[in-house]
Amino acid sequence: MFLAKKYTKKHEVSYYECDINQTMTFPSMLGVVIKTSEDQSDQLGRGSEFVNSFGLTWVITNYSMEINRLPRVGEVISVTTQAMEYNKFFCYRNFWIHDEDGKELVKIESVFVLMDFVNRKMSSVNEEIIAPFESEKIKKIKRQEKIEKIDSGFMLPYRVRFYDIDSNQHVNNAMYFNWIIDVLGYDFLTTHVPEKVIIRFDKEVEYGNEIESHFEQIPIENGVKTKHEIRMQEQLYCEANIIWKNK
Amino acid sequence: MFLAKKYTKKHEVSYYECDINQTMTFPSMLGVVIKTSEDQSDQLGRGSEFVNSFGLTWVITNYSMEINRLPRVGEVISVTTQAMEYNKFFCYRNFWIHDEDGKELVKIESVFVLMDFVNRKMSSVNEEIIAPFESEKIKKIKRQEKIEKIDSGFMLPYRVRFYDIDSNQHVNNAMYFNWIIDVLGYDFLTTHVPEKVIIRFDKEVEYGNEIESHFEQIPIENGVKTKHEIRMQEQLYCEANIIWKNK
Repeated sequence: MFLAKKYTKKHEVSYYECDINQTMTFPSMLGVVIKTSEDQSDQLGRGSEFVNSFGLTWVITNYSMEINRLPRVGEVISVTTQAMEYNKFFCYRNFWIHDEDGKELVKIESVFVLMDFVNRKMSSVNEEIIAPFESEKIKKIKRQEKIEKIDSGFMLPYRVRFYDIDSNQHVNNAMYFNWIIDVLGYDFLTTHVPEKVIIRFDKEVEYGNEIESHFEQIPIENGVKTKHEIRMQEQLYCEANIIWKNK
Repeated sequence: MFLAKKYTKKHEVSYYECDINQTMTFPSMLGVVIKTSEDQSDQLGRGSEFVNSFGLTWVITNYSMEINRLPRVGEVISVTTQAMEYNKFFCYRNFWIHDEDGKELVKIESVFVLMDFVNRKMSSVNEEIIAPFESEKIKKIKRQEKIEKIDSGFMLPYRVRFYDIDSNQHVNNAMYFNWIIDVLGYDFLTTHVPEKVIIRFDKEVEYGNEIESHFEQIPIENGVKTKHEIRMQEQLYCEANIIWKNK
């Protein structure tokens, strides 16, 4: 029985991390969450410098999020991360956000891969990099939940801006949520609350690209399912499904 | 001799608050800075609920920033704020960012006004709101440095997005920097470092507006001066001048 190392950090939710609903935006929430895994890596001597010394860098390919309640402005949340399991190519890392009473607000399952930053190809998992996290080695490739395609939708174009590239030198995955969420519009976003998100990042967009944020809404019981595709010149860059309940 | 109350808070600069230069973006820096003044207000029992109880809300009209060095990813900064002086309509508040050695990185002078949020008009300063800050009452209206207009420039359009409205219910002033900075382009922004910023917010933009971010570059000794205007339908919403030195 393996018990991978857990790492927890507190965070006070600021007004500028929240939207008009008084709850945290996806980019802010994912920023804080990923920072926690970076802090754990630094603490274990496996920070970005160490990873880069092998010519490698971490890339996130999938998130699956279950949201009981989004963090609210002013509250102090605890963010916990744990590198659960890995196989030859994929590392499975979980995140949890708890409120001050220890109630689980959000659970995020993610898939990380190591990429060679010269040839931009996926590398097999390097034991030296991941040993200190004490995650379990498994044979199986864990199947990610299937993301449903758009049948007929609408879209808006978005240009990738300078501030969409973060200090890790590429367009932050969390930024895709700017385009995915914005396209739904004010009326939708002030009358619906997200409950579940699955997202897959297929290709990296780059500074100056003009992407298309496509979406489709499907009514479901007590809410709506939205399907999302970030496309450029007919190519798929990112796809997501979100379950929303009515407010 | 008055000595208004100072308030200081530490902040660890995260990767997602920094751009590709490894230094803090303007929106992140101003977010952290304004949070400090909100924390001081809360501590003195003059938080937004108290201000709102008079039908009022704080609005920032001007910033003047002097930058010795932008905060870098990973460093712990101290943010200090002090409500310096006020007259019948204007409150003058300073901010300082220091590094761990106590060296001043950034100094920001700002002008705050109280606005009636029903009729959107400026209100005279309410003594009950500002007394606990112990700032000095002055007669004089402090002249802000003149912002030079654009003679002939270029522009890009930007649509105001859902995430540009923060939990304070309007487009965050810091967001104007997204449009002002982005329009300068990657090559400029990776070869120049800001030294001085003066900015004035004239009118509020709203969700769904498509604004124009105009700019002009003027060569100066060892650098460039950029002039900026945010306009919509020939109306001026915001103007700024920035002095940059070559990297």
